[in-house]
Amino acid sequence: MLLCDIGNTSYHFLDADEDYKEDVKTFNPASIKENVYYICVEPNTKKSLLKFSNWIDLSEKINMSNYYNTMGIDRIVACEAVQNGVIIDAGSAITVDVVKDGVFQGGFIYPGCRAMSFTYKNISSALDYEFNYDLDTKKLPKNSQDAISYGYLKLLYSEVISYKMPIILTGGDANLLKKIFVDAKVNDRLIFEGMKKLI
Amino acid sequence: MLLCDIGNTSYHFLDADEDYKEDVKTFNPASIKENVYYICVEPNTKKSLLKFSNWIDLSEKINMSNYYNTMGIDRIVACEAVQNGVIIDAGSAITVDVVKDGVFQGGFIYPGCRAMSFTYKNISSALDYEFNYDLDTKKLPKNSQDAISYGYLKLLYSEVISYKMPIILTGGDANLLKKIFVDAKVNDRLIFEGMKKLI
Repeated sequence: MLLCDIGNTSYHFLDADEDYKEDVKTFNPASIKENVYYICVEPNTKKSLLKFSNWIDLSEKINMSNYYNTMGIDRIVACEAVQNGVIIDAGSAITVDVVKDGVFQGGFIYPGCRAMSFTYKNISSALDYEFNYDLDTKKLPKNSQDAISYGYLKLLYSEVISYKMPIILTGGDANLLKKIFVDAKVNDRLIFEGMKKLI
Repeated sequence: MLLCDIGNTSYHFLDADEDYKEDVKTFNPASIKENVYYICVEPNTKKSLLKFSNWIDLSEKINMSNYYNTMGIDRIVACEAVQNGVIIDAGSAITVDVVKDGVFQGGFIYPGCRAMSFTYKNISSALDYEFNYDLDTKKLPKNSQDAISYGYLKLLYSEVISYKMPIILTGGDANLLKKIFVDAKVNDRLIFEGMKKLI
């Protein structure tokens, strides 16, 4: 079974237990003859796939009554993979979604690590520091680097642990955030697990 | 007594009980003959004032052992005004500082409202919403506007109220944040109060 999670920049495939990526700009979907079960966040790519009968859009299999209209399909499918937990998908944005007894409870959106770093340095050159992922979250900072790291990371941490649920990290920056969320489980294939459940 | 809080864009004066601003680009400090007690965050402006003997830099009167080297003088002087409380200074950045029994405990820096709004819309046009300052902070969001508003405002709110101290709002966006921090006290003249204490 071939699965594909299509983002803004790449087709992310899972073929049995092996995953690989193809560039959105150069990949030709007609090159695949077998059935592909996919989700796609990008409207134009999604439209272009309609003409291939072997490309099967899994978004149509979702009971949307639990979710909301403008919610990204990647967030929704990640939620479908979880019975009880907080999902932190750390990409260009960080989405945080809560699922209880298999039902989506709501979620919020926070800037991703790169975007937020850019924000601070854009406000003032005096705030142009890398984030300190080894930050002591129990102590109010007394230096500039920790002051912005705390502002970004500790506030996210406090909110997420306040739900008192298992934490699942996914997305490109999952391992970076794992340094703050020490008890979280990193799962790179959460979306594929959600897709399998839908099939 | 004439006080002046000099920022990146303006000289903010307090003359007895009347305050007014002058543009950094056009204002001539030599035009004032009486004594002016000032603080200044901008190194070049600060340097240019050294030649005027009636401009008196209050930063020299501060016992810096409680603070840290790269901490902005405006933050420090605001702390000097407070005995017990959390100071939220909401400008281009939001600084949050905790003072207990007159001693600075530490603080953090968060992006200001404009900067953060720009960050979200820069990540994706799907996140191009105004913040909802009437957000219900007790409920996980189920729509895009509230999802980013919660990510920005609720996380700040939860952190600040966790200190269980009186909250003082100051800075240009103080009244905007007052909608979230309903129990906070807005004080536009906190820095002037700190300056008076130092004199």
